[in-house]
Amino acid sequence: MARPKQSATEITAMRERILNATFELLTQQGLQTLSVRAIAEQVGVSHMTLYTYFENRDAIFYALRERQRGKKHQRRAAQLQEAQSGDPCVVMREVLASYARLAEEHPRLYQFLWVHTAAHATQHHQEHRFACNLNHLAALIEIGVERGFFRQLDPDLAAATVFSFVNGPLILYHSGHLQDRDRLRAIEAEALATALTYLKKKEC
Amino acid sequence: MARPKQSATEITAMRERILNATFELLTQQGLQTLSVRAIAEQVGVSHMTLYTYFENRDAIFYALRERQRGKKHQRRAAQLQEAQSGDPCVVMREVLASYARLAEEHPRLYQFLWVHTAAHATQHHQEHRFACNLNHLAALIEIGVERGFFRQLDPDLAAATVFSFVNGPLILYHSGHLQDRDRLRAIEAEALATALTYLKKKEC
Repeated sequence: MARPKQSATEITAMRERILNATFELLTQQGLQTLSVRAIAEQVGVSHMTLYTYFENRDAIFYALRERQRGKKHQRRAAQLQEAQSGDPCVVMREVLASYARLAEEHPRLYQFLWVHTAAHATQHHQEHRFACNLNHLAALIEIGVERGFFRQLDPDLAAATVFSFVNGPLILYHSGHLQDRDRLRAIEAEALATALTYLKKKEC
Repeated sequence: MARPKQSATEITAMRERILNATFELLTQQGLQTLSVRAIAEQVGVSHMTLYTYFENRDAIFYALRERQRGKKHQRRAAQLQEAQSGDPCVVMREVLASYARLAEEHPRLYQFLWVHTAAHATQHHQEHRFACNLNHLAALIEIGVERGFFRQLDPDLAAATVFSFVNGPLILYHSGHLQDRDRLRAIEAEALATALTYLKKKEC
């Protein structure tokens, strides 16, 4: 008996499941050792089935990267909107805390993004990623200044400063200098509070 | 005509010159490629002459490490004494600024000490070095708190916090994320000022 043809919704749902499985495996074991067979196993289908949804391994990675990029843009746009109408301090706290959350939930990914020194080939990506992060922080700071929540600051400089406040301890931990996880959490709390004090007007 | 025998002072002076030359070469080209011949050339003597002052390459490195360690201990003891009698804020500023100065003057050494992820063999040294740096900062903070210059703080936590404030931007720069040197200097100034504000009593 032939299987009934899948609807577009069913195809999209299956592709999502495959991308979720790939993301999961990537954060666990990195890119090098990740095979289509391993992804298919994680989803619970045969690897031949998987090829009906994606042409090859690269197509899966490409789709995953695009999906994650899209999600990030949506999240950032929502944060800027929230800062425009709500409390920019709350949004800033959320954004700054997200680095520690990423490092906690996906340590391998955090190390890949921020700790390991890049090879020449990925140096450009690394600079671009850093610039995107700083641009988002600078846009938030600009809104905070305009709306009178933050001090008069150079948004670009202040963005780099608060970025390094919260990521400094994380990088020291994930490069092996700082060993104690509880100590890291305590330092992160200090860094986050200090970053917000640095941004806010005194009367806040 | 036989050379007159050297005095103890002359021998010490020559050993110092050799150690200075070795330090200079180490910071320029690292440990791997550094030969006794290269050191002798840098000093301006034959490598046979050099062997009358040191048994071998390892003996030079050992003497250099001991000398640098001794200098550091002396400097740190002097800083603690200065904090006891003078202004702890001034001493703290000096200590925190010294990381940026090291990174500026000896970028290869700074990268070796704080940026590159350690191999298992050097992991222990790395932890020890970090602990020594934090202990010194914590001792300074304790003096500052006792003498009423700094807020009531947990010295160990505050030490790790200010360490990561000033080293975060340096590590981001020396691992390739941050590219602009002038921007780094501006962030460092912000980080240093914020670290001191974080430590000091409000009435300062």
